[in-house]
Amino acid sequence: MAKKSRFILLGLGRFGASLARGLAEKGHKVVGIDIDEDAVKDLEEFLDEALVADATDREVLGAANIGDCTALIVAMGDEPLRNIIAAMHAVELGAPRIIARGTDHEHARILRKLGDIQVILPEQDMGRYLAEHINAASDDARNKAADK
Amino acid sequence: MAKKSRFILLGLGRFGASLARGLAEKGHKVVGIDIDEDAVKDLEEFLDEALVADATDREVLGAANIGDCTALIVAMGDEPLRNIIAAMHAVELGAPRIIARGTDHEHARILRKLGDIQVILPEQDMGRYLAEHINAASDDARNKAADK
Amino acid sequence: MAKKSRFILLGLGRFGASLARGLAEKGHKVVGIDIDEDAVKDLEEFLDEALVADATDREVLGAANIGDCTALIVAMGDEPLRNIIAAMHAVELGAPRIIARGTDHEHARILRKLGDIQVILPEQDMGRYLAEHINAASDDARNKAADK
Amino acid sequence: MAKKSRFILLGLGRFGASLARGLAEKGHKVVGIDIDEDAVKDLEEFLDEALVADATDREVLGAANIGDCTALIVAMGDEPLRNIIAAMHAVELGAPRIIARGTDHEHARILRKLGDIQVILPEQDMGRYLAEHINAASDDARNKAADK
Amino acid sequence: MAKKSRFILLGLGRFGASLARGLAEKGHKVVGIDIDEDAVKDLEEFLDEALVADATDREVLGAANIGDCTALIVAMGDEPLRNIIAAMHAVELGAPRIIARGTDHEHARILRKLGDIQVILPEQDMGRYLAEHINAASDDARNKAADK
Amino acid sequence: MAKKSRFILLGLGRFGASLARGLAEKGHKVVGIDIDEDAVKDLEEFLDEALVADATDREVLGAANIGDCTALIVAMGDEPLRNIIAAMHAVELGAPRIIARGTDHEHARILRKLGDIQVILPEQDMGRYLAEHINAASDDARNKAADK
Amino acid sequence: MAKKSRFILLGLGRFGASLARGLAEKGHKVVGIDIDEDAVKDLEEFLDEALVADATDREVLGAANIGDCTALIVAMGDEPLRNIIAAMHAVELGAPRIIARGTDHEHARILRKLGDIQVILPEQDMGRYLAEHINAASDDARNKAADK
Amino acid sequence: MAKKSRFILLGLGRFGASLARGLAEKGHKVVGIDIDEDAVKDLEEFLDEALVADATDREVLGAANIGDCTALIVAMGDEPLRNIIAAMHAVELGAPRIIARGTDHEHARILRKLGDIQVILPEQDMGRYLAEHINAASDDARNKAADK
Repeated sequence: MAKKSRFILLGLGRFGASLARGLAEKGHKVVGIDIDEDAVKDLEEFLDEALVADATDREVLGAANIGDCTALIVAMGDEPLRNIIAAMHAVELGAPRIIARGTDHEHARILRKLGDIQVILPEQDMGRYLAEHINAASDDARNKAADK
Repeated sequence: MAKKSRFILLGLGRFGASLARGLAEKGHKVVGIDIDEDAVKDLEEFLDEALVADATDREVLGAANIGDCTALIVAMGDEPLRNIIAAMHAVELGAPRIIARGTDHEHARILRKLGDIQVILPEQDMGRYLAEHINAASDDARNKAADK
Repeated sequence: MAKKSRFILLGLGRFGASLARGLAEKGHKVVGIDIDEDAVKDLEEFLDEALVADATDREVLGAANIGDCTALIVAMGDEPLRNIIAAMHAVELGAPRIIARGTDHEHARILRKLGDIQVILPEQDMGRYLAEHINAASDDARNKAADK
Repeated sequence: MAKKSRFILLGLGRFGASLARGLAEKGHKVVGIDIDEDAVKDLEEFLDEALVADATDREVLGAANIGDCTALIVAMGDEPLRNIIAAMHAVELGAPRIIARGTDHEHARILRKLGDIQVILPEQDMGRYLAEHINAASDDARNKAADK
Repeated sequence: MAKKSRFILLGLGRFGASLARGLAEKGHKVVGIDIDEDAVKDLEEFLDEALVADATDREVLGAANIGDCTALIVAMGDEPLRNIIAAMHAVELGAPRIIARGTDHEHARILRKLGDIQVILPEQDMGRYLAEHINAASDDARNKAADK
Repeated sequence: MAKKSRFILLGLGRFGASLARGLAEKGHKVVGIDIDEDAVKDLEEFLDEALVADATDREVLGAANIGDCTALIVAMGDEPLRNIIAAMHAVELGAPRIIARGTDHEHARILRKLGDIQVILPEQDMGRYLAEHINAASDDARNKAADK
Repeated sequence: MAKKSRFILLGLGRFGASLARGLAEKGHKVVGIDIDEDAVKDLEEFLDEALVADATDREVLGAANIGDCTALIVAMGDEPLRNIIAAMHAVELGAPRIIARGTDHEHARILRKLGDIQVILPEQDMGRYLAEHINAASDDARNKAADK
Repeated sequence: MAKKSRFILLGLGRFGASLARGLAEKGHKVVGIDIDEDAVKDLEEFLDEALVADATDREVLGAANIGDCTALIVAMGDEPLRNIIAAMHAVELGAPRIIARGTDHEHARILRKLGDIQVILPEQDMGRYLAEHINAASDDARNKAADK
């Protein structure tokens, strides 16, 4: 990682928080936006900019300097419609790269139709990954999972 | 995969369904148990044995021949206590290997104290994975994610 | 109306029911699909084909011969996400023309990004219409509104 | 529009907000009353007088100078009883003209029995309108709907 | 009571049930309609005709021979709108006399505007009655209240 | 009424408010206690002492000088258990006379077992009263009910 | 225990089920009544008579031969009012001895006023018991608690 | 009790409050932690240290000097998972002795697997106790229960 990247995270739940932590530990700049004040506070040490706001509100995104980021990640919990709206704003406001955590395959297809959005489905992706590696990687994975 | 394995899945939600499909496609025998009849029906073609039942009920597990499986996977949705109870039954009934989908790190620690249980946290694990690969693996992941 | 048209209505609530009635009275063929059995029964006399089913389920739409209709209208109540999913299925299954009742302007923008979808917002459209005609058309409108 | 009119709007939801905007743009004076502070704030620029208050409370209406308006429009959301109560107050307090947004035909009949009230049913009226114009007006309507 | 009267009761809750019992004991014919099957069953012995149906549905009232009764009493619980709708139907279908149990004074005013409806407000009426008689009638009332 | 009486009202809902008004208009001193601040405020002009407090809390009643009143009336809404607890406190704290608004006949029997409590059941009592007077008193009652 | 006793249990929750088991193991006849079918089924082997019914319904108790029992125990869960009503019925129907599981001290006082009722408060009684024995009985209790 | 003991109570509900009172009356030092401010206030006079906090939060327990107590008692209401989490923290933070109020036998088994935890089940334990003593101890228990 030669030059510093700037990532914007909409939603700091279990997925978003884990991602924020990981990105910060690798030296990236992280902007975190969540409607829940506690979620923002818990991650303060990992965030360069922290905002308690509703990311479905276009003005909130408009003020976050979306055009100037490495990638924007939409991960606003399990309410698919809110993720869809925020992703649409991000497309319209010109985010250079958008990744969205989806809920199911229909949700993923809708997201992809809104623009060039890369979709991640944690539950389904992990299910498929485990099916693939359940035999070979067993001992190894067990060790890695044991430490938080 | 020289010899056929038998996997028992407690819970056929997004994670469990995806896992069932993946295991069946690799030629494994899959036993699926879920309290929701629709969830079981939707996966019928991938299941060797299918059971609509409450996997927190010890008698249900007792009848499922738990001792004779390659691994038992606990993935009963987002109600952590139900996962914990089912995992405890599985330990007591002698499942040779247990993998459990957890909700958060406290939940994971409780599960590990019940016995030798391997814990997966899809949201957190995917968050960390993405932090790791967001730059390098971008194009590749984008392609892989695009096909269901 | 020289030649008979065939319209598919997803959702038979206040908007959909009123539309079904109007289309049938003009001599069109109307296919009505709603998840609520009572809603379907109440309109039976106006429907050529009536189906109690969930129109967010792609298989339901697949069986409705969507390719062969004059227009398909999505009007599944106030749950925007369900409307969005059904509209996406309709686009993918090749409906020749799609009209969707939306909830608000963000919802309308999402619908339009899914394909060539014409969006109607009854509350907002009527508000604007009334602002336009509140002075001139007053007496006339009053008379027309008085008879059901 | 030679001389300025004054309109009182009870309720600034989707219908009321759209109406307020339209009336203001035509140069009318608009008084807006809503129990929801955000709804009032969002329209501030279009309102000559703005009031956060419960319009089912007769004292609120008593203070709004109801006798001196061009028309009073009741549009307090989907709770029909609240609309009925506000409309009754408006009749008793001598509003020169009353228009009410209704929910269904029974609701409309009750409103009309309270006095000389003109009733609008957005969903049903738009359904009937679309049935009428779905063939002829198609392209035209599509263009007009596309711009917010 | 020389000649037998016929009373139609919409709603068999605490007020309606007590009224049905009292009317039957005086030798009147009582028709009871309630949406709750148990409420109807509990009063069977006091009813000449008993109907489990929704009295806000105009067809239900249309079939009850409303024109031919001594009085129709509307007492459908604490949901004022349902009482208002049923009372409006009763007016339109020509009930010779209508009594309605109201909830509060605004509710009562609405009912009275629908037609010539006599309104009873049990809570308020009893409050005023007690204020009047709390001193004088004390011992007497106490005795009377003691026997069910 | 030669000498002024003092009445304590627990609960200022529809029944209690109506009673408070009636007692005050006859020149009695009225103490009103309700957990809902608005209910207390609305009656301020009729109350000599007004208290926003939970009357199931024995200390609240202990401070209200219960021993020195003409009668205490328990009318705390439709939650029977709260009425029962407050009535029990009133008995134990030595109220000289207790009247309680009950919900149904079982509720009334429980109240009477707690001590010498006079029970009023507004719905049932009005139902029986109407059954008695529906023919004779019709015109008269109609007139009286018409004025608030 | 020379001669066989007959106990009637209203409510088969955690407390009631544990009591039923204990009484049956000592050779007593146990009658169990609960509104929940599963609760009754789970204890079938311990019950001489089992009834799925609502014990607040006086007719249910009237048919249970209450006068002829050693004791009747009221333990209908955490809804105090239901316990109070059932206990009142039991007093009125002449149960020779009544024990009731209460919720808190106010609840207990109400129960005792209904008749000669012995009240048990499991949470509070165990709290006090533990305070008494926490030091001395520690090891012993620990052993006893360890076996189910 | 020669030397003063220090007890930490997590949860001050019915069980915890009763225990706190009993311990304080015997001269022990009592530390009380509960998330509900009122629960803490009501017991202030019996507590040496009182804390309004969430005892599932490990930092709360870390600050409570858990290593230095005679025993820690987990009694956080009927939500088993919260009790399990707090008990796990207490084990990990080195409480010398842990007692936990459980809900049912499965819950108890989970608690015991987390470490050396003594489990109390108030409902079940009292049920069994009553089964044992219902005949012999009847009069005695009745007397003791009668005084609060």
